[in-house]
Amino acid sequence: MTDQLRFAVIGAGRIGAVHARTIRDHLQAELVVVADPDGEAAGRLADRLDADWTSDVHAALVSDAVDAVVVASPTPQHLPHTLAAVGAGKSVLMEKPVSLDLGQVDDCMTELGEGASRVMVGFNRRFDPSFAEVHARAQAGEIGTVEHVTIISRDPAPPPSGYLAVSGGIFKDMTIHDLDMARNLLGEIASVHATGQHLDPQVEDTYDAATLTLTSTSGAVAVIINSRHSAAGYDQRIEVFGDRGTLAVGNQRSSSVRLHDATGTERSGLYLPFFLERYQRAYTAELGAFISAALSGAPQSPSIADGRAALALAEAAAESAATGAVVSVGQEVAR
Amino acid sequence: MTDQLRFAVIGAGRIGAVHARTIRDHLQAELVVVADPDGEAAGRLADRLDADWTSDVHAALVSDAVDAVVVASPTPQHLPHTLAAVGAGKSVLMEKPVSLDLGQVDDCMTELGEGASRVMVGFNRRFDPSFAEVHARAQAGEIGTVEHVTIISRDPAPPPSGYLAVSGGIFKDMTIHDLDMARNLLGEIASVHATGQHLDPQVEDTYDAATLTLTSTSGAVAVIINSRHSAAGYDQRIEVFGDRGTLAVGNQRSSSVRLHDATGTERSGLYLPFFLERYQRAYTAELGAFISAALSGAPQSPSIADGRAALALAEAAAESAATGAVVSVGQEVAR
Amino acid sequence: MTDQLRFAVIGAGRIGAVHARTIRDHLQAELVVVADPDGEAAGRLADRLDADWTSDVHAALVSDAVDAVVVASPTPQHLPHTLAAVGAGKSVLMEKPVSLDLGQVDDCMTELGEGASRVMVGFNRRFDPSFAEVHARAQAGEIGTVEHVTIISRDPAPPPSGYLAVSGGIFKDMTIHDLDMARNLLGEIASVHATGQHLDPQVEDTYDAATLTLTSTSGAVAVIINSRHSAAGYDQRIEVFGDRGTLAVGNQRSSSVRLHDATGTERSGLYLPFFLERYQRAYTAELGAFISAALSGAPQSPSIADGRAALALAEAAAESAATGAVVSVGQEVAR
Amino acid sequence: MTDQLRFAVIGAGRIGAVHARTIRDHLQAELVVVADPDGEAAGRLADRLDADWTSDVHAALVSDAVDAVVVASPTPQHLPHTLAAVGAGKSVLMEKPVSLDLGQVDDCMTELGEGASRVMVGFNRRFDPSFAEVHARAQAGEIGTVEHVTIISRDPAPPPSGYLAVSGGIFKDMTIHDLDMARNLLGEIASVHATGQHLDPQVEDTYDAATLTLTSTSGAVAVIINSRHSAAGYDQRIEVFGDRGTLAVGNQRSSSVRLHDATGTERSGLYLPFFLERYQRAYTAELGAFISAALSGAPQSPSIADGRAALALAEAAAESAATGAVVSVGQEVAR
Repeated sequence: MTDQLRFAVIGAGRIGAVHARTIRDHLQAELVVVADPDGEAAGRLADRLDADWTSDVHAALVSDAVDAVVVASPTPQHLPHTLAAVGAGKSVLMEKPVSLDLGQVDDCMTELGEGASRVMVGFNRRFDPSFAEVHARAQAGEIGTVEHVTIISRDPAPPPSGYLAVSGGIFKDMTIHDLDMARNLLGEIASVHATGQHLDPQVEDTYDAATLTLTSTSGAVAVIINSRHSAAGYDQRIEVFGDRGTLAVGNQRSSSVRLHDATGTERSGLYLPFFLERYQRAYTAELGAFISAALSGAPQSPSIADGRAALALAEAAAESAATGAVVSVGQEVAR
Repeated sequence: MTDQLRFAVIGAGRIGAVHARTIRDHLQAELVVVADPDGEAAGRLADRLDADWTSDVHAALVSDAVDAVVVASPTPQHLPHTLAAVGAGKSVLMEKPVSLDLGQVDDCMTELGEGASRVMVGFNRRFDPSFAEVHARAQAGEIGTVEHVTIISRDPAPPPSGYLAVSGGIFKDMTIHDLDMARNLLGEIASVHATGQHLDPQVEDTYDAATLTLTSTSGAVAVIINSRHSAAGYDQRIEVFGDRGTLAVGNQRSSSVRLHDATGTERSGLYLPFFLERYQRAYTAELGAFISAALSGAPQSPSIADGRAALALAEAAAESAATGAVVSVGQEVAR
Repeated sequence: MTDQLRFAVIGAGRIGAVHARTIRDHLQAELVVVADPDGEAAGRLADRLDADWTSDVHAALVSDAVDAVVVASPTPQHLPHTLAAVGAGKSVLMEKPVSLDLGQVDDCMTELGEGASRVMVGFNRRFDPSFAEVHARAQAGEIGTVEHVTIISRDPAPPPSGYLAVSGGIFKDMTIHDLDMARNLLGEIASVHATGQHLDPQVEDTYDAATLTLTSTSGAVAVIINSRHSAAGYDQRIEVFGDRGTLAVGNQRSSSVRLHDATGTERSGLYLPFFLERYQRAYTAELGAFISAALSGAPQSPSIADGRAALALAEAAAESAATGAVVSVGQEVAR
Repeated sequence: MTDQLRFAVIGAGRIGAVHARTIRDHLQAELVVVADPDGEAAGRLADRLDADWTSDVHAALVSDAVDAVVVASPTPQHLPHTLAAVGAGKSVLMEKPVSLDLGQVDDCMTELGEGASRVMVGFNRRFDPSFAEVHARAQAGEIGTVEHVTIISRDPAPPPSGYLAVSGGIFKDMTIHDLDMARNLLGEIASVHATGQHLDPQVEDTYDAATLTLTSTSGAVAVIINSRHSAAGYDQRIEVFGDRGTLAVGNQRSSSVRLHDATGTERSGLYLPFFLERYQRAYTAELGAFISAALSGAPQSPSIADGRAALALAEAAAESAATGAVVSVGQEVAR
């Protein structure tokens, strides 16, 4: 049967659960097994979704019972798990960031060779219907030459300290989505300037807010504005300015009710609370695109090279924030 | 000098003050005198605006020093004051309603004869830039055949009892603006259905809210929704639905600031508080149109016949609300 | 097994397909069989959803393999199919209108007796998250005493002639949803005034647009504005006005992209095209509520009495539109 | 007479005309004379506004018939004209930028001494009702600690080449307003990073677009996004993000009409076309504040020191754009 894909999900954490549920609900996908060294966690998730589970991650990566693997393990395992699964002939949907170390990505890409085309990196926002619409309309020339992109991305609240400690910092953990989006909308980036802020003393990280200016090789500019907190909810906006017009995506809410009373008018509810809600349709579309490429043999996109490029930009941003200098990235990124 | 008009304002109350100030600020108008039997009130207003004042209303109506008269006296004087001024050769801008008695309007129109063309009735909302834009674009066919109009008009708070006692009721006092707007957008009205509500026991009037359905001779329908109170401020909206689209005018605010916080998003300020603020530009445009017609000799519009038609519709509405029956008005209105 | 319900769907037409898909995608529901006298239609739908099919409708209604039946057959079969299924011990989700004949509903209700509590009528809009939120917040007193409701409901385009011929007319077919919503928001209705329009000569029906004014027993008023066409898409709005504020639900779009260019600003996409898209979440929530009541034994709501009340209001509206008179419905409705 | 101020306007160009009209329409102001070396231009403007004119600028600056002077001459004359008028005891409303040369500003401030308190610099946007409301609400703590400001400011179309040649470049000519706004909202700025773009080959200037990141001494960050063109009209937005909420000012339009049809929904008109329209109320409020301080003897604000600070930031931005380096400005600005 060629129109359905059998999946293993590696990693029973928050993002693994998102993928597992999305697979369970997709008509062309079957969730076979959830694997996590923490067998209890794997079992809890698998039981809710009527799937098998195992604490033997390697067995799941190479199992004959699966066609595809979602790598949602901790970041340091992203590359080894991907290598193992691709080596066993699987298609791989790999979470971001691909790694915290650019050298390891290069080594992995060398080892993967042609197998790299079977790897999609989970830049889910590319598949958000609104962002995808902006991308398509901008590409189609509706607003003329794209000159400027503004990306605002603020989380509702900081993650726990434990998460932060291994996150690789705001640029590799959070900004990386926006860096990919900037590349997606503007093409290759030539240079990066970044400023970091440490606003909330409770947050044990170098920065909990950042502002970046990217210049593309075509001369277009992107601004990225990040924060680890946002009182009104998950703040996710993109605006693409061209010489003939602007395409803008505002925030989304769970209801369209508005209140008008003596304290104000047009009052709406909060933004969708976080990525599960805001990007639910994006995860579904991402999975659909992955399945479609896996079944047809087309190369996966966004590719591991896209993941590498975003990581290189994140490293450049970290350097710029530390030194105050604009960091050129052209050659590095466009390998 | 033919490009400026010298004005007397009759009536130093709230709406008289609006006109007096608008005249004072208009480059083609000169405020000569404010007249009110209550000389003290006339004096207070005139002093603030550097004009003369008198308690001799008739003298002002026929004074050689004025070219035009704004009749903002109590409703029962609207017709006699207008007759006197037109008889003395003046152009007249007459406040609504033209009268509370249709028969008196007919008599007055007979007496005015050709002089009626020098009388504008103060349906200021026709001159609101947004409403005028909707009217013009609908007339130009932008939304195809106009099929339905929805007019929402709610005052922020009921007027004082003294005002209500002589207002003629909600239909002649408040709805009359919306009735004129319905005619302006749809053409002649053939029948009226009205429902009145008495919601606030403090309001000493038959109704303090009303809902009307008007059918035009072309078959298009208008709904009018009125209330004497509105917690969020002066609620003034119009929506014109055609078979090719809808033109809608929403409420206006004094600032475009929006607040997004943990209690809600998109929160704006209250609507502009009342007619002075909401229709400030309409009063100025109305005066400009009046001056322009007066100087050129063109007939004034909206005319006293428009005032009569709106009054006939208000009477029909009152009858419908009392009896529950649909009231036909075609012939009556289209005299 | 107490946490899942086995379903038969009767009727393989458009709305039957909506329910069948919703059941297929619901974790607590199993689609067992699709039944339609047109076996081919039943087979096509069932095959797509991995269910059985039959052209023997009665067999499906009483089958031991099902716990619940969705009655989506043509309107004249709604009551007999419901009676058969309830007689066989099933819970029934019955499409609107319950019938085109009030007397038949009364007879059916008598025959059902206590079994009526196992019947839900498919007023799906009550389950729309935005409308349900407005209902809950209004009930909770957030806007004070509810004084006025405005319901705008316009289809994107008229249905085919064949459908219209058996639809029972705009009031029983289309307005019936809005009549239920008005009752839901305002409580029992005391009187109805309706005006019908026949705008599009292509539409072979008495009316293809209507405007209604309903007065509730509490004195609150509802306006309903309907049209069989709407150039910008499915136009579904509700506004509830109370003495302390207004709750409003605007139209929804599939994307939040806005375009600003030399031809205009804030330009959004069309409204969600029709009920499948606009009320997708409502159908899912409706099914969830139905399953929940069926499993717990709680009475279903909205009930067949709600269906009867909406039908009585639709009949009153038709009478009012024909005669021009306000029609009192209090006793009739509140049986 | 202490409640009115007699004005000379120096410079009969575009911005001089704005001030002259605003003075003519202000109840506490009298336009006495328009002065411009181009006597014909002065005469044309003065005639329209019923004022005197002269080509002898110095005579106007020191005339006994005036209490206050608006310096709207070409930038190189701003300082000498201000010195002359202050020396003659006048209050001065001086257009931005105060100069293109920081050293000359310093010399002028030394020479002015205490007289500097009688000089207002025309950063009109501080007086825009919406921006002023955001400033006041942010200062009052409504959104907690201010962490980030986003300022978008795009002109509808580039100025003529002749203007550009003497403008001092985008940072001193255009960004300077936004630099003042950033200081106004965030307090002193510590460092500046700027990126310039040259997008339109027709524009004979180093840059016709720019993106800046400013870090304040408190650690808050401002982003400024500028362009010399904007297809949808004058794009003027500010967003202030605090740890408890966001205050945002969107664009304004001349009408509130929205069109919904088969090509889109929520379609509004273009933004107010340019600064005359967008900031009309700001110019009036600015003049009112100037008159009020002049009559009471209070120091004018924004002061010449504010003008100097914005100029220093503009110079830092130009340096940063040229070198790619972040430029520290703390000491320089906070003289």
